[in-house]
Amino acid sequence: MKKSRVTLTDIAKALNISASTVSRALKDHPAINKETKRAVVKLAKKLKYQPNLLALGLLQKKTYTVGVIVPEITGHFFSTVITGIRDVLSPAGYNIAICLSNESFQEEIAITEKMAKTQIDGVLVSPASSTKTYKHFKALQKNGIPLVVFDRDCPGLDADKVLVDDYDGAFQAVEYLINSGCKNIAHLSGPMNLSITEHRLQGYLDALGKHKFPVKQENVIHVSGFTHEDGIKPAQKLLKLKNRPDAIFAMNDCIAISAMHVAKKMGLQIPGDVSIIGFDDEPHSSYFTPALSTIWQPVYSVGMLSARILLSKLQEGEEEPELRREVFKPELIIRASSKAV
Amino acid sequence: MKKSRVTLTDIAKALNISASTVSRALKDHPAINKETKRAVVKLAKKLKYQPNLLALGLLQKKTYTVGVIVPEITGHFFSTVITGIRDVLSPAGYNIAICLSNESFQEEIAITEKMAKTQIDGVLVSPASSTKTYKHFKALQKNGIPLVVFDRDCPGLDADKVLVDDYDGAFQAVEYLINSGCKNIAHLSGPMNLSITEHRLQGYLDALGKHKFPVKQENVIHVSGFTHEDGIKPAQKLLKLKNRPDAIFAMNDCIAISAMHVAKKMGLQIPGDVSIIGFDDEPHSSYFTPALSTIWQPVYSVGMLSARILLSKLQEGEEEPELRREVFKPELIIRASSKAV
Repeated sequence: MKKSRVTLTDIAKALNISASTVSRALKDHPAINKETKRAVVKLAKKLKYQPNLLALGLLQKKTYTVGVIVPEITGHFFSTVITGIRDVLSPAGYNIAICLSNESFQEEIAITEKMAKTQIDGVLVSPASSTKTYKHFKALQKNGIPLVVFDRDCPGLDADKVLVDDYDGAFQAVEYLINSGCKNIAHLSGPMNLSITEHRLQGYLDALGKHKFPVKQENVIHVSGFTHEDGIKPAQKLLKLKNRPDAIFAMNDCIAISAMHVAKKMGLQIPGDVSIIGFDDEPHSSYFTPALSTIWQPVYSVGMLSARILLSKLQEGEEEPELRREVFKPELIIRASSKAV
Repeated sequence: MKKSRVTLTDIAKALNISASTVSRALKDHPAINKETKRAVVKLAKKLKYQPNLLALGLLQKKTYTVGVIVPEITGHFFSTVITGIRDVLSPAGYNIAICLSNESFQEEIAITEKMAKTQIDGVLVSPASSTKTYKHFKALQKNGIPLVVFDRDCPGLDADKVLVDDYDGAFQAVEYLINSGCKNIAHLSGPMNLSITEHRLQGYLDALGKHKFPVKQENVIHVSGFTHEDGIKPAQKLLKLKNRPDAIFAMNDCIAISAMHVAKKMGLQIPGDVSIIGFDDEPHSSYFTPALSTIWQPVYSVGMLSARILLSKLQEGEEEPELRREVFKPELIIRASSKAV
């Protein structure tokens, strides 16, 4: 039982004026005389007229909707970023339409195509792990849709970017392990072809290099995904090495927890036999036994700043100010899973 | 640098026909002759015409967007429900616009008002914990927007509903604790005024009643929220009771983990001194020490079924089939935090 809505045209017909006059009258436009304005507002109230934002969007070429493309929202990271985004855009009158790429390049392309068609005002995106080229993002930009990239970089893409210095976080973690006396430090690295994987790996390598530690190929294993399950076998492989590592720096907290689980099952002491440090500081991480040392990232702030930058583009309209590249510094949080320095 | 898009009107002007003829030609409408169709399709291809779904939405009164209103997405529950929703709606050509009520009745009202204005096709909602009346949902329904309620019930609201039998899950957990020999079972209950809180509390009370266990008021404490932090003080209060409980059934896994943390800090053995059972089976829960016993819910299925029901409403259009009320049964998962039977 669809009930029809009162439209601008209904009001226009009733008053024998044009719909655009009604529209401008309701916006208190100076070109419309006061009597007309009064009549329009009176009738609009009487008929309980509600502006149709969709139609308004067509007139103004704005939908007041911002697309947010993220790989997934089952982890803590992206859901917290989105909360930050919402806390900026919602008070500014924007809806957010969150779309999940499911770490798939193809799905990400399909999402951007649909967003272009529905004339979304702007897009905030953290690319899928399988995304290596950026034509689909450039297509949005060519359509006049501003784009802000967050967390995961798109090297070579000209866009505003809000990133976290993953390299620095990894470097801090590994240097701490060295300073605490660990001699044989392994890395459970992320899936290949992901900028955060590369940055964290490079931070690990450079910290070893700075302290003249040899880099052993057997000590670096790439996991295939970000869940606990993805970490179990790689952790087993590392901890069964003939020359067993005395420390593991893991790509994220989930993988670090898998490593703790495997180490405990093997009867190893943490941190006595093996120190473990994660990355992300998930809400659970301080409640594990032992409490997990990790890298804290200003996740909520990444969301807020990304949204603020996009908002400034949307409000500036046609202008093209300089691209921004903001990089947050993460922080090492030492708990009980790593030896004291 | 906004570039203008090729519109139906551009094609219409070039061929000296009306825009609606172009629109119908592109849809292979039988009223349009073949020659016109051929000419339109040829020119549309040449000009790389992309249908403007927003304009299309106005013509068809459809936006192909479904609103999803959830209290938050930082936990595992709602983000997994949303993944289930997406996996049904996305292949059917629908975008989902996820909006967060932040557990606020006022924000939820603002979201529904905005959704009504933007003519969203349908809404999936899990109400905020502070939502006690449903006028805003009824307003959507009056506007012809179908509504499916999931997880958290809205008693008295006529809508399709997909729920989990929280009562049964709680009953199972508490009866298990009784069968394992626990004599003094406490409940860390959820925030007041939330249907899941009431159902889980009632399951606890009825399981005690069935086994002729007395209900002690001091053994039931309501937490104020769903995070680890919210559980700490209530857990301390319970475990410092003169007649200390030998089992705690917690509202959710986060709160259960807080209780484990507090118990361990007090030097209590789990489950020797106190058995602990949670609710939700979060991905982390099997990795705590001891691994947490909990209630598993078919979260992904809740999302899929809710979306399927909404989709059938959207596709049936004007018809009003009977309302559906689907209730999933949860499952008790016994790990190491509770005594064996």
